[in-house]
Amino acid sequence: MSAAPSTATAPVAAGVREVVAEGVAEATGVADTTGVFADRLRRLAAQAARSGADVVVISPGADLQYFAGHSVTSHERLTALVVPAVGTAQMVLPALERPGWAGSPLEALGVPFTTWTDGMDPYPVLVDLLPADVRVLAVDYHMPAVHALGISWAVPGSELTLAGEIIGELRMRKGPSEIAALAEVGAAIDRVQARIGEWLRHGRTEAEVAADIAAAIVQEGHARAEFVIVGSGSNGASPHHEASSKVIAAGDPVVIDIGGPHASGYYSDCTRTYLVAGPETDPDFEKVYEVVRLAQQAGIDAVRPGVPAESIDRAARAVIEEAGYGPFFITRTGHGIGLEVHEHPYMVSGNDLPLEEGMAFSIEPGIYLPGRFGVRIEDIVVVGPEGAVLMNRAAKTLTTLGG
Amino acid sequence: MSAAPSTATAPVAAGVREVVAEGVAEATGVADTTGVFADRLRRLAAQAARSGADVVVISPGADLQYFAGHSVTSHERLTALVVPAVGTAQMVLPALERPGWAGSPLEALGVPFTTWTDGMDPYPVLVDLLPADVRVLAVDYHMPAVHALGISWAVPGSELTLAGEIIGELRMRKGPSEIAALAEVGAAIDRVQARIGEWLRHGRTEAEVAADIAAAIVQEGHARAEFVIVGSGSNGASPHHEASSKVIAAGDPVVIDIGGPHASGYYSDCTRTYLVAGPETDPDFEKVYEVVRLAQQAGIDAVRPGVPAESIDRAARAVIEEAGYGPFFITRTGHGIGLEVHEHPYMVSGNDLPLEEGMAFSIEPGIYLPGRFGVRIEDIVVVGPEGAVLMNRAAKTLTTLGG
Repeated sequence: MSAAPSTATAPVAAGVREVVAEGVAEATGVADTTGVFADRLRRLAAQAARSGADVVVISPGADLQYFAGHSVTSHERLTALVVPAVGTAQMVLPALERPGWAGSPLEALGVPFTTWTDGMDPYPVLVDLLPADVRVLAVDYHMPAVHALGISWAVPGSELTLAGEIIGELRMRKGPSEIAALAEVGAAIDRVQARIGEWLRHGRTEAEVAADIAAAIVQEGHARAEFVIVGSGSNGASPHHEASSKVIAAGDPVVIDIGGPHASGYYSDCTRTYLVAGPETDPDFEKVYEVVRLAQQAGIDAVRPGVPAESIDRAARAVIEEAGYGPFFITRTGHGIGLEVHEHPYMVSGNDLPLEEGMAFSIEPGIYLPGRFGVRIEDIVVVGPEGAVLMNRAAKTLTTLGG
Repeated sequence: MSAAPSTATAPVAAGVREVVAEGVAEATGVADTTGVFADRLRRLAAQAARSGADVVVISPGADLQYFAGHSVTSHERLTALVVPAVGTAQMVLPALERPGWAGSPLEALGVPFTTWTDGMDPYPVLVDLLPADVRVLAVDYHMPAVHALGISWAVPGSELTLAGEIIGELRMRKGPSEIAALAEVGAAIDRVQARIGEWLRHGRTEAEVAADIAAAIVQEGHARAEFVIVGSGSNGASPHHEASSKVIAAGDPVVIDIGGPHASGYYSDCTRTYLVAGPETDPDFEKVYEVVRLAQQAGIDAVRPGVPAESIDRAARAVIEEAGYGPFFITRTGHGIGLEVHEHPYMVSGNDLPLEEGMAFSIEPGIYLPGRFGVRIEDIVVVGPEGAVLMNRAAKTLTTLGG
């Protein structure tokens, strides 16, 4: 879809709800989709040609959802969208999946569907659809090795390469419907963060709290709870700790990092750090919390079109380094988000990609003190003409729960 | 782990609960795990040597869970278990993931951990761990293409191949702890099927019913709801239809195919077909239901050690063909299950693999009448010394709900 950045971001800042219904319909391929998807396929073929790939093959997942307006959950049976640099896009899929594509954007576009049945070798079926002189096969980053190699072995003399950069170029600039979908799912996860006090208290295990949160993530409007991190006390010092059988203690800081996809496929991802009421807390916790809060705000304030992605990392990191906690900020500052929870662009040192309107990513600095506690605060933002447009609005003042 | 099949299945049939706690502890690596995992790593290296692979590289997911007793959800940053045919297993992972592996079976085994940090190229880090003369690199089926190619490009002159068969040989024979975990998660999904009457009625959309079921799947003891198929009326005729905005009508047959992983990582997967109360139903529905029920029972009755996997398919299919519905049974009869919802062995025509005690798989024949309705009935079974041991016990008599 074309960039149209000023209309892309302004409605979100003004009043997201109005554009959400239309946006999600477009994103899920329910209405008026052929234009969007025809445009995406055209751009993909053009990018492939420019990069020297003869064909791009896309497997189920976020990339297929993006280009086909529909995907399937199973990776095991070969399902692939085949987009030659020159020629017609084609779908190859198991016969039993064909009914699920009825009414899909690809069908509306007239893309041919070729099916295979259990017991057949599917790779020659796909290869028969390729132009005769295909040599460079580019596959999406996520294609399972079994399919990537299966396809390449069926084209003797071919060269297997990656289409990730080609695809990322297109996917990282969000259109209006995509931003609306991010805003809707962002509001859904905000509602869950606002309810954490219902479940978080000392004496419960992290896993018990996580199970309640997971159910609420679905109740509040997600297709599923994809990740629920409940990192209490010293577990919070591991950025990717999930949820354990550890009993949460009075006075524990607790990192809650949660999200999942909306029915549209677009993801939420929001972290808040809470304090569980108790007589004793690590004496440095409040100070560290405030450093992280200011660092996260500095990251948000640094966002504007044209600045390099790494400058967001630098802005947040500077606050933490000045406070003397530099060695304990052990992650990058953020990741792109959309149909995947982690995608381009990354807010990381060394990434000089200039930010553009419509790019969507997390800003999530943290301080991780081994054996003690962790603090992380994370929002999703979209680059607007004036700076960051927040997709999350859950409070960031230090909140004590379970008192 | 060694097969010990007679003790593997007998306790499940007799009284599953007693072995579950111990079994899950072992499966998740909480207790007494080093023996199990040392044995799995030894067998993997031996299989690699036999198959001509110099090294097997395993990425996050079920394979890593199986061999390392722990995994991570992110595929994006390179995380891999490196198992040479000759030499010591090694882990390579992002520094920020290292704390999550504290106390893991690999650590207890003394497997070295090598970390890399954001901004580094991780592939040379992995390649530095390989024996100098490595040429044939085998990767798990699910390794994303970005990592499989990234590793192979970092070893000039190497040959990239698949370790799926090597790994499948080990994983498809379940040990006692794995069977206990399957029984526990099977009982959890049975409790959800027993509650379908709380949610399924005419006037609700499939998606609304699916959201309630997804929440219950978590409540009843799953880590998450991985799939919730609600196929009402003609949607039931698409085996992989998920859940739509279609309003369920009075008299609709509804296929409910649900499951997800337990905290242990082992999956449930159970399908029942219900009838929504109403004045009018397709006149063939009851007959078709009975054909599928008998076909599924025939599949179960055909299970015993030594028979080929395809004979289970043949037994179920014969019942459906005799009733004249052969062309409408458009899937294989079943798939293996364990740490993945679909894994080896497959109950499909052409698979002459002899069943062995400890193999676990679904038996799920169906009849799919396009534009009308579908019926599918599915249980998970484990091959025991005398035949199939059922992991699901939800009723299979035709049940009318929402009246």
